[in-house]
Amino acid sequence: MQIIPISVNQDVTKGDDIGRLVMQAVKANRVSMKNHDVVVVTQKIISKSEGRVLDLSTVKPSSQALELARKTNKDPRFVELILLESRKLVKYSENLIITETKHGFVCANAGIDQSNVSNPGDNSVLLLPVDPDLSAKRIRRVIADTIGINLAVVVSDTFGRPFRLGQTNVAIGVSGIDSIKSYVGRTDMYGNILRITEIAVADELASAAELVMGKTERIPIAIVRGYEFSFTESNNAKSLVRDSVHDLFR
Amino acid sequence: MQIIPISVNQDVTKGDDIGRLVMQAVKANRVSMKNHDVVVVTQKIISKSEGRVLDLSTVKPSSQALELARKTNKDPRFVELILLESRKLVKYSENLIITETKHGFVCANAGIDQSNVSNPGDNSVLLLPVDPDLSAKRIRRVIADTIGINLAVVVSDTFGRPFRLGQTNVAIGVSGIDSIKSYVGRTDMYGNILRITEIAVADELASAAELVMGKTERIPIAIVRGYEFSFTESNNAKSLVRDSVHDLFR
Repeated sequence: MQIIPISVNQDVTKGDDIGRLVMQAVKANRVSMKNHDVVVVTQKIISKSEGRVLDLSTVKPSSQALELARKTNKDPRFVELILLESRKLVKYSENLIITETKHGFVCANAGIDQSNVSNPGDNSVLLLPVDPDLSAKRIRRVIADTIGINLAVVVSDTFGRPFRLGQTNVAIGVSGIDSIKSYVGRTDMYGNILRITEIAVADELASAAELVMGKTERIPIAIVRGYEFSFTESNNAKSLVRDSVHDLFR
Repeated sequence: MQIIPISVNQDVTKGDDIGRLVMQAVKANRVSMKNHDVVVVTQKIISKSEGRVLDLSTVKPSSQALELARKTNKDPRFVELILLESRKLVKYSENLIITETKHGFVCANAGIDQSNVSNPGDNSVLLLPVDPDLSAKRIRRVIADTIGINLAVVVSDTFGRPFRLGQTNVAIGVSGIDSIKSYVGRTDMYGNILRITEIAVADELASAAELVMGKTERIPIAIVRGYEFSFTESNNAKSLVRDSVHDLFR
């Protein structure tokens, strides 16, 4: 299995077609796409192309945002956006706000980003795509329609997690591949029914891609080649969301 | 970056030297190891080599184990082992026990495994290595001493997580590489100080390796080649453990 970093040497702006950008960047990197590749794209360039950049100076914080901002030492306008992007406040502490986003993802700051958005002094922030599964589907379709290559697309973002330090890349949008690989009913090499039954492969693909992307470089795309999977049209990253009823930690 | 699966065509038993087994298996797979490779090894073969197999029929459950077993519909002897391997019960529900292991890892069943251990009908279970960081260090040293190759070693296991469905592979033992890559103080491509500062690369390496390992196949080893890192002697998987004082979800 190979993981191929794809650099992009242009700023992405509203209206850019990420499917086309992926094809151009892959070509500029002297790589060719193949059927059954998995293309991992960071959320950041997708959000930019979808115009999800907002200027904090245009945001008027609500009284709820003002109160939460005081408790968490954050900019009230930033907190207002976090609340607007969320359906539930999960936890907060000094300097930390964890919510359940409208997509169902549990993460810090509703996934809103302040780095790699704009020049210092500017107040721009970047919201998550409205429907990252749809974003992934669009990229996949543009590539299939333009060059006839059938591949899977994973949209990745960097999330923290309970119990363990450090952040990892996870999948927030998926198209063409099952987010979860199920081993239900299969047996281990001794003939026992397996207990470990569901692997979140879309998250693992996102994590694998992060290893070649880094954070400070202009590598927002990676191609995973040689990963074995069957195409599916029905699955998406929403199937990675554990609902709060079945979550012991909410 | 390449991820190369390494199959092993023998049962691992107590006393086997995993460093030697890795070298033999790599050779049998017609691969050669290189300086700066990261070798990912599943916990399972390490635990077996360290004699961490236990027969449930030899276990006498305590009254605490009997009570917890009743509440969780589990074998009281299995629950007894979970408690013995843990320093704290974190959560439980019907069919689920989550503890903090003696290493500090928060996971189901204290990481004790019932699959890929022995034949059906047998009552064997497999405990985590006592010190997976030391296990990783030993593998690394044997390879360095025998063939003079300097590489990093990650011991992986499959854990569930809150908020998201499916399990992913994470690092429970690390030698030769920082578990966390820090971007503290670095700037993004616009010159802003980065907010996302710490990436759990050891977990991402374990996840990447899982993609070629699968669960039912005899592939307990993977080589990650071409991942850029600097060698370190001081770091280990324990640095991935978030202590409960700094965890909002315990």
